[in-house]
Order: sequence, then structure tokens, then C-alpha cells
Amino acid sequence: MAANSFGELFSVTSFGESHGAALGVVVDGCPAGIALDAAAFLPELARRRPGQSVATSARQERDLPELLSGVFEGRTTGAPIAVIVRTEDQRPADYEALRHAPRAGHADATYAAKYGVRDHRGGGRSSGRETVARVIAGVIARKVLPQGVRILGHALRIGPHVARRFEPDTIESNAVRCADPDLAPRMVDHVQALRARFDSVGGIVEVRVLGTPPSLGEPVFDKLKATLAHAFLSVGAVQGFAFGAGFEVATLLGSEYAADPAAAGGILGGISTGEDLRLLAAIKPASSIGAVAKGGRHDPCIVPRVVPVLEAMTAIVLADAWLQHRARAGLGSP
Amino acid sequence: MAANSFGELFSVTSFGESHGAALGVVVDGCPAGIALDAAAFLPELARRRPGQSVATSARQERDLPELLSGVFEGRTTGAPIAVIVRTEDQRPADYEALRHAPRAGHADATYAAKYGVRDHRGGGRSSGRETVARVIAGVIARKVLPQGVRILGHALRIGPHVARRFEPDTIESNAVRCADPDLAPRMVDHVQALRARFDSVGGIVEVRVLGTPPSLGEPVFDKLKATLAHAFLSVGAVQGFAFGAGFEVATLLGSEYAADPAAAGGILGGISTGEDLRLLAAIKPASSIGAVAKGGRHDPCIVPRVVPVLEAMTAIVLADAWLQHRARAGLGSP
Amino acid sequence: MAANSFGELFSVTSFGESHGAALGVVVDGCPAGIALDAAAFLPELARRRPGQSVATSARQERDLPELLSGVFEGRTTGAPIAVIVRTEDQRPADYEALRHAPRAGHADATYAAKYGVRDHRGGGRSSGRETVARVIAGVIARKVLPQGVRILGHALRIGPHVARRFEPDTIESNAVRCADPDLAPRMVDHVQALRARFDSVGGIVEVRVLGTPPSLGEPVFDKLKATLAHAFLSVGAVQGFAFGAGFEVATLLGSEYAADPAAAGGILGGISTGEDLRLLAAIKPASSIGAVAKGGRHDPCIVPRVVPVLEAMTAIVLADAWLQHRARAGLGSP
Amino acid sequence: MAANSFGELFSVTSFGESHGAALGVVVDGCPAGIALDAAAFLPELARRRPGQSVATSARQERDLPELLSGVFEGRTTGAPIAVIVRTEDQRPADYEALRHAPRAGHADATYAAKYGVRDHRGGGRSSGRETVARVIAGVIARKVLPQGVRILGHALRIGPHVARRFEPDTIESNAVRCADPDLAPRMVDHVQALRARFDSVGGIVEVRVLGTPPSLGEPVFDKLKATLAHAFLSVGAVQGFAFGAGFEVATLLGSEYAADPAAAGGILGGISTGEDLRLLAAIKPASSIGAVAKGGRHDPCIVPRVVPVLEAMTAIVLADAWLQHRARAGLGSP
Repeated sequence: MAANSFGELFSVTSFGESHGAALGVVVDGCPAGIALDAAAFLPELARRRPGQSVATSARQERDLPELLSGVFEGRTTGAPIAVIVRTEDQRPADYEALRHAPRAGHADATYAAKYGVRDHRGGGRSSGRETVARVIAGVIARKVLPQGVRILGHALRIGPHVARRFEPDTIESNAVRCADPDLAPRMVDHVQALRARFDSVGGIVEVRVLGTPPSLGEPVFDKLKATLAHAFLSVGAVQGFAFGAGFEVATLLGSEYAADPAAAGGILGGISTGEDLRLLAAIKPASSIGAVAKGGRHDPCIVPRVVPVLEAMTAIVLADAWLQHRARAGLGSP
Repeated sequence: MAANSFGELFSVTSFGESHGAALGVVVDGCPAGIALDAAAFLPELARRRPGQSVATSARQERDLPELLSGVFEGRTTGAPIAVIVRTEDQRPADYEALRHAPRAGHADATYAAKYGVRDHRGGGRSSGRETVARVIAGVIARKVLPQGVRILGHALRIGPHVARRFEPDTIESNAVRCADPDLAPRMVDHVQALRARFDSVGGIVEVRVLGTPPSLGEPVFDKLKATLAHAFLSVGAVQGFAFGAGFEVATLLGSEYAADPAAAGGILGGISTGEDLRLLAAIKPASSIGAVAKGGRHDPCIVPRVVPVLEAMTAIVLADAWLQHRARAGLGSP
Repeated sequence: MAANSFGELFSVTSFGESHGAALGVVVDGCPAGIALDAAAFLPELARRRPGQSVATSARQERDLPELLSGVFEGRTTGAPIAVIVRTEDQRPADYEALRHAPRAGHADATYAAKYGVRDHRGGGRSSGRETVARVIAGVIARKVLPQGVRILGHALRIGPHVARRFEPDTIESNAVRCADPDLAPRMVDHVQALRARFDSVGGIVEVRVLGTPPSLGEPVFDKLKATLAHAFLSVGAVQGFAFGAGFEVATLLGSEYAADPAAAGGILGGISTGEDLRLLAAIKPASSIGAVAKGGRHDPCIVPRVVPVLEAMTAIVLADAWLQHRARAGLGSP
Repeated sequence: MAANSFGELFSVTSFGESHGAALGVVVDGCPAGIALDAAAFLPELARRRPGQSVATSARQERDLPELLSGVFEGRTTGAPIAVIVRTEDQRPADYEALRHAPRAGHADATYAAKYGVRDHRGGGRSSGRETVARVIAGVIARKVLPQGVRILGHALRIGPHVARRFEPDTIESNAVRCADPDLAPRMVDHVQALRARFDSVGGIVEVRVLGTPPSLGEPVFDKLKATLAHAFLSVGAVQGFAFGAGFEVATLLGSEYAADPAAAGGILGGISTGEDLRLLAAIKPASSIGAVAKGGRHDPCIVPRVVPVLEAMTAIVLADAWLQHRARAGLGSP
């Protein structure tokens, strides 16, 4: 498996640099007969796009996906689905200053050490813009899953502010994707204050999956929690993954854990139980702060922007697990 | 990649049930010429074995590894290395009662739902005993890594007790694998009190890697943090993975994160920087509590037992990343 | 995918050297609920064993398979199935002379160059004895396939003698596995004459698959013909693979090809049509000839011995293709 | 590994239908620092293009490759390299008649059975046009190989005509890619006669690799001969693969085989010896004959057109084997 691919049966290959000609993705293994067209990607691409809210940078990207293959007369054919998004806002001049100055806290230096060459334009391959590919693949993945599966990400925490309520309809109604209508304004204020100071803050994204099919995940190395962790940590800003009670398990007694139905997060023995999944991602504060933030694009809080990306990664993992389970289940039963 | 295999170039395949004839592992992709014999596995198998300390169950397993292939005249040949450990303590009668009674909190029910059949003897494939395979593979993996890499796991937290010091020599001197000599006795007392109450407690294992080579990890899906997360979460008791500042990043400002050299945990842009890795695993409290704990084997705290397993998984990930990096680096440089 | 593993969903990992402690195989991805015990392997291991016929060497191997995992109360559980066969006839003294003398025509020299070390005992990993692992996996693979699939290999050609009839019941009734009752005696005589001269001869094995399910094979790189070719050429003695009309297509007109229903060999566009598969393998003459043959084990013709191995590889490929097709088919159809 | 991907470390993912918006390829795992631009693909794309010679159809494709990613300032960066070629000659009207009439001898019917849907436009994914992706990847693969490796394909046989000489400079000087200057005119005449009769003919392509590095290929399932066979048979028109003496081994004595240095074709024990590789592919006669040929595009002999495709597949296999060997070699040697 190549390093820019993910998934066994539902396999996603990502390519493209933030300021190259295009970003793109090839989804191989999507079953035939699923309704799909390029317009299907637009809502999620819009959700991913920075510059739409108080929390994220003012960059204006128009992401127009082109569906190059794998769909015929409005339905998937079983052939690989390739989608590209041309880069419209290349602005390479902005980045000329970075040629000899890798940015602190970014991947610039590690990439340069690893490869001996470096595409200094806006992070190149390590840019958050690569997640366009994931969001597109996530749209396809959701269509593979059985009807009734709902994947809902939200900002569970931003800095000191922790959501207490989960109202799905609230998520897209505020700039930080907070599901707690009481807390959302305070989260927004917090982020705005940081913008003024050219600082940034981290947070926690929770992804809930309602209607999760049971029996997803393969023992022993591809437990559902393991492939979800892999998927989440493959996103640049993610510094941790947990499910259910998360790192709080460190302080729980076995009797407390057993008494709380949500503690296991819908996963037992690494396999989905059919209960709702509760997945957590720790998001580090953005590295562009201080002088760097003043001069360029500045995201005081990338938590809301990561939400659709982690939803997409969740969908990709679940679609793959679903196809894998289908591949093996039932055959030869007595 | 099959679900019981892990790794691309350094590939580990695990097999065996807790009360089957044997547990085993096949390591494929180990370079030729490395000194190896069956005795090399004994120290780590001894560290993994339960029943050796106050914290874990009284089960006495004698794990005698048999080296079946891949070594000739004391050196690896490049052929796959197979090692098995016969099960000596099968005691199947103990488990007959479990045939029709899947244990709450264990994988019993999810496995039964998934496969339609269930090996009810002590968890079968989902038993912690499967980690014998991982520990053996970890011993081989360490030999693949460059000299000077040290992988040190310890109990950073057990319940309310959080280690403040890191003294490597202390780790194996106490029953809970605590690296803080001041705190260790209190952790031990805490666990003993829970044993008396047939309850259990969770914790946090930290794995530090000293002498980590830079440039390990492959963008974008196989970032080092992503494959480490996959490896850690593939261990049954692990409920979360994080590195560096961990889930604390949710409360950090960008300025605070940038000012703390340990916050990034030795990984930048998903690739190792050459600094020490700091990896965290949230360990849930063991499920065998109350009446179940009274009747059978009881681990009030599996944190110390998970330590050598997570060290092994770390070694496996690093060995694979090391071979992958070597495979690509340098070629074609101008 | 490690180099000693084969297959995506039905995945076979082989290990062991010809004169090491044991040969073995791990089959991962076998569905749960299939009846299996160690005795199931005996007939195919007996067919594979050399020394049973005029055509092959007098080596007496007693292959007693041990089923280590993946089966509980007589049925597969979905866990990896590990099987080993201990080496009883190690006779390492025989091979001491080979330590500094790689045998011409064998893999000895290429392995030594590749790995810098060499297990000189009877070919080590490159020995034909490794095929024990394949034959065992093939037995499991056949059980995964739908009922009614029959995989029948036979010696289509040995030296100048080409079978004209295909009588399945004849195959096991003669020492060369010829399906043509008229020709079998002449093939046997031919081989015996070569034995006396310490020479050897090549041939062609044909594997026919009756009752092949349609739609097996995945475009574009994993066409059924491509994975079959990979599987066949992975067997040491195989120098070529073809199907249907084979290399004769070079001389056929398109009109002739279209008029002959057998020309396509049951594969169209790389995918099985549901017609019988006709697969061909060119087998090179054994390398142990002349002085080497006088001093050691001598196979004047390994064609009959390759038959069960190629049947096994065919079963493995078909089982994997069957699971892959099942994984994708039907989902999302309008 | 997804079915539209090939290779472990040097990994090629192909996408696109013959009459879709574009064909494309993603090459992942190409080392950084290799000089590359879009113009580098033009010569091989020109060689692949049909309609340039007497032997192939009159279709005029202008293949203008667009390099979307993975190259910065003229050198590869280690990121995935994506290249697309837009379809200019879609002519969908031509194919409307095929909507309800799958063409005999083509993959149309098998694809329809497998997927339940069918892209009837010129074969869709099963079209020979997909090989554009392979040729592009092959250009990159050649740059990964050590200097001095030369991969030379030619028409060894067309119908009854078998080349006796191998003059590399002759290959591109005649319309059938024959390396025998004496025979080339007769091959051309043969093909022209078939064109007039709307019939077609098969042949044999030989690919020679001069300057092959030794030690390529991984035991046991990824022997060099096995991955080459996989690669060759993944090409639509290929009905067989062999190396060295090919299917002639069936008639050779061991003494004859040992006496002929070319019989082993540069591969021993599945691993390259460092001698020239001699690879053979049986090419079936094109299916478009008779009435179908009269109405549409007609290739009386696709042998010359397959030559650059098989060269590309050879380069891809060798580049992957080269990176794999480099990844493992030498480490840990005493």
C-alpha cells in the first residue's frame, strides 16, 4: 500500500500540492450502481473551505470539482473514480520569501530533511489544502454505507470552553461548529479575541456516528478503533485520538466504566457494537502565530475546519470496514 | 494486507487463540544478517507475562518460544521468521461455563455477532494473550533499528496518581512500572486496594523513544503519528493515543505550544524530527470486576502489563518506517 | 504486502526452509463456519510428496500437519489458520558439501548474492519443499469456493509426448499424472529412460477448472489471468503461463480465434466468463542432472509433482477473487 | 492493494475510460530529486499511439499529458505524481449502437455481468486506451532504475514470421517493430494482407532488458518472474508470459537447458542474475474482425502497439523490485 493511499477495499489515493496545478483523489473499490455527479461534492467542499467564518483564515478558494472517471450516465461503474480540483489561487509570489526560510512549527523542515528538496509554496504536500481530496472521497464513502448512517462532527471543546449539549441542528448555524447553542457564542468570542492577538488555540472535535452497523472492524490489527485512529492522526492538525470516555479512562474504576453505556463509545473488542460511535480528536493550536500570522493567512482556530475532514475520514474508514465485513461474513455458515 | 498482519516492509502476521494449541507470529521483511536466537525473546516475554506482580493476575504462563524459520547459524537470512509459543496452561474446563454466557465488557458478544461462531475459551483471539506475538515481533524489530534507539515505556498515570519524574532505571524495580521512585509505592498501594475490592482502574502509558532517527514516517496517510496510533489502538485495552502534549493541546494557545519543545513530541508534519518521541496511550480499566473477578483471574490494573506490548508496537512501527525511509531516500538526488 | 504473502482477502503467508525445524502457512481471511481439521490436508500432502512414483525422487517425507489456530470445535472461526509441518528428514550432513559450492542451475548463488548469507541445506527457502505451505492453503481455499468448482491438473506434455484425451479419472492412476490413458505408459517410459541417464525433462501442466463462477477477476491490474500468472510463476519450476490457446495464439487469425470456443480459456477482458478455465504452465527440466543427480536426490521429471501445487495456487487465486467479487458486487445497484 | 493499483513501493494507480473526460495515472513512491517534466512523456506516448503505422487502426489520438503534482522546479519531490491526458476524440455517437450490443470477443459482456452497469463507449475501462496510464508510469519508472538499464521490446513473431536477428536500431524503423531487418518487410506485407481481409493475427513480443541489476525479485511469492508475469498478463491482449526458453522448456532435456546460457532468461530461483532478461508475451489476434472491423476502427495486428506497453510494465516491475531490494539489502550484515 502506497503512503498516499488509504483503505483496503475502499481505497483512496490522494495527490497534489497546495499551490500546484490541482489537487485530486482516486477512489478505487467503490461498488457499481451508486448515483454520483460532480455537484455532489460541492456542499462538503464548501464546508471545508476556509475563509467562511470568524474562526478561519480569509483565504478564498473556489473549489470546482471535476469528475474525470468511474461514473457513466450518473452512476458509478465499479471503475476508479478520479476527481480533481484546479488551483485557482496560486499566488506563488507570496511564498517566494519562504524558499530559504522554513516556517517554525510547520512540516517545512522535516520534509526538507526527508526528501532533500522542498516545495516551499504554502506547505506543498503538507498543507491543509490536501484535505480537499479527503472530503471528496468522504462524500463517495457515505454513499457506500447503508442508509441511515449519520456522521456528525462538532467542536466539543475550544480552549477552555466545553460543549455540554449536543444539538445536531445547531452545528452549522455558528462559525465554530459548536453543537451546544448556549456555548457557541462564547466559543466564537474566544476565537475572535485570539485573532486580534495573532495567537491561536486548540480544541477537541467529536465525531458521532448514529446508526452504525454492528460487526465493523477486523481483528486484530485492523480493529475499528485502530483504523479510525490511523485515519484521524493522518490529518495534519490532529494530536490525539480516543473514543467513548477517551483519556478519562485513566481515572475511571472498572465499576464506573461498566456502569456508563457511553464509556465504550460503541466499540467493544475493537468491533462496532451497533451503538453510536463517539470519536474524539485532539486538535493542536495552529502554528501560524505572531509575526507569521500578521504577514499571511491566519487561522486562530482550525477546529471548525477540521470537522468536515474528520467526518470524511470516518466515512472512509466505515465504508472500507463495511465492504470488508460484507466480503467475509456469512460464507460457509453451518 | 490481511487484518492479522501489520506493516508494509517489516510485516508482522499474528495467529493463535488464548487457549488454542499455540500462539505465533511470522515476521516478513527482516533484513538478513542480524544475530537472533530463541533466547533473545525470553526477557521481553518474561516482562509481558502476567502474574509476576501485584498489579496483574496470578496466571502462570511459561512462554517458551520456538524459532521455526528464517534464522540459519544464528543469523537472519532474509526469509520469514516464524516463532511459536505452545499453550501449556489451557485449562479448558474453566471456560466451559462461558460457552453460553458471553462476558460483559469483553469482545465475546461482538465476535459472536460478527462471525456466527465463538471460541469461548478465555477470549479466544481477542485475549490479551495474543500480545505474545507482538512482543516477539518487537524484539526482532528493535534489532532492525539503528543502534542507539531506546524505547522506554512506563506507567505515567494510574487512577489519580501521575508520575512527575522519569527515571528509566526505576521502571522495572516496582510492580507497576512507574518511572517515578517517589510515586511508585503509592501506585502499588492503590492497585492493591482495588484488588481487595475486586475492582480495577485505568491509566496512561507513556512510551519514550530516545535516539529516534529523523525523517521517519511517510506523508500523507502513513505519517508516523498515524501508524503509531494504528499500532497502539490495535492493542485491546487501549482507548486513546496521543503524542507530546496530548489532549492537553485542546487548552493550549499557539504561543504556548510553540514555546514548549516537548509539545510536539518529536513529530512535525507527521515525520520524526530526531528529537525524542513521547507517545501516550489511555488504558481502560480491566473488564473483569465484581463477581467475575472473584471467580477467575483478575487484573486490577493492566497498565504495567501493557507497557512491554506498546514498546513492542512502537518498535515494529519504527522498524517499518526505517526500512521505508531507507527504500526511498537519496535516490536520484542531484 | 510482504513478499512471502499472497492474496488480498484470502491471504496466504508461507514460512520455513527445506531443512529447518518446520514449514508452515498462515491463512488469513478465511470466512468463519467452514468445517476443517488437520486430516483434511493429508490427501493433498500425499499427492504432493515426492518419492511416490517413477517420475520423482525417492525422498520419503512424512508430512504430518499440525493445525495450530483458527479452528474451534471443527469449524473455522474467522481467525487466522496456522498449520505447520515438522521436518523429519533433515539429514543436514548430506548438505555440508554444499556449504561452499552453490549448485549450478539452482537459486543458491542468486540467494547468496541477494542476502549475503545462505542456508545451504537443500535450497533453504527456495526448495520445492516450500510448496507444502501452498498445498495446505489450497485445501482451505477449495473449501471457500462455491460447491461444484472442480480444479483438475494433469501432465499435458512431457518432453515430446502430448496428451490428446482428457479423462479425469485417469490422472491419479499413473505415475506421471497423465489424463490420456493411451499416452500415460509412454510418458512413464520416457521418464524412466531419463532416470537411467541421470538427465531430466520438462513439460506442460494444464489446470482445468470446471464450474468456474463468472465475474472473477478485478480490472485492470488484478485481472484473473494476471493473478493466476503471478501465482503460477511464483512456483519455482514454472517458466511460463498461458491460458486457452496459449502461445499458439501467435499463429492464429482473429477469425480462427473467434471460431474456437476454447481459445479464450474461460477468461474474457481478464474476467471469468463462467466457462471452464484452461490454464497452462511450462515446467522446466529439473536442474539436478549428471554428477549432481548421481550423488543425491534426482527428479527426472517434476511435472507430476507440480500438478497439486498448481491446483493449490489456482484454488488460492479463485478463493481470493471470489471473496473480492462478493465484497463489491451488487451493492448500490439501482 | 486496490485492483487499479500495481506495485508495492513504486506504486501505480490507473484511472479513466476510453471515452471519458480523461485518462490518468498516479505514481506514488517515486524517490525525490529526479528530473521530470511533461515533455518527457511525449516520445513514449507517441510510440503507443495507434494509427501511426500500417499495422494498427487509423485512430488519431493526440495525447497531451498534463503533470498535475509531485514535481517542483523540474524535479520530483517524493510526493505522488499525477498525470492526466484529456480525451479529445470522444466520438460518442459512434458507440451508441453498442449500447445494447456487447461486442463478441471483447470484455463488454463480462463487465456487464460483473458490475450490472456498462460503459459501452469503446470498451470503457477495458479499452486498450487505458494503457496510456501505463506508458506514462513507465517513463517515470525508467528514471528510477540505475543508469545503463535498457528495456527493448520488439515483435519476435507475427503469425508465421519469426525474427532471427536482433538489431535494436531496426525496431523503430519499420511499422511492425521487428528487430530483424530481413524479416520486417514480410511481416508488414502479412499484416497488410490481413487488413484487406478484415482479419487479424497474433504474435509474440519479446522484451529484452540489458544491464539488469542482479538480486531483483523477492522470494517466494514476489519472485521477479511472478511480478513480471502479473504485469504482462494485466495487459488486455496478452494471453501468455514466459522467459528465456519459454514454453520450449517442455521439450528440453535438463542437459540441454543447462548448456544454453539463454534458457534461464536472466532469472534463477526467481531472482535476477544480472544477465540480460528475455521476456516473452503471447499476443492474441485482435477481436475486431469481419463485419465489426469494416464498420469501425480495425487493428489487424496489435503486436507493435503492445511493445511500448510491455516495456513500460517491465520498467514498472523493475523499479519496484529495485526499491524493494534497496530497502532490505545490506542492513545488519556482519
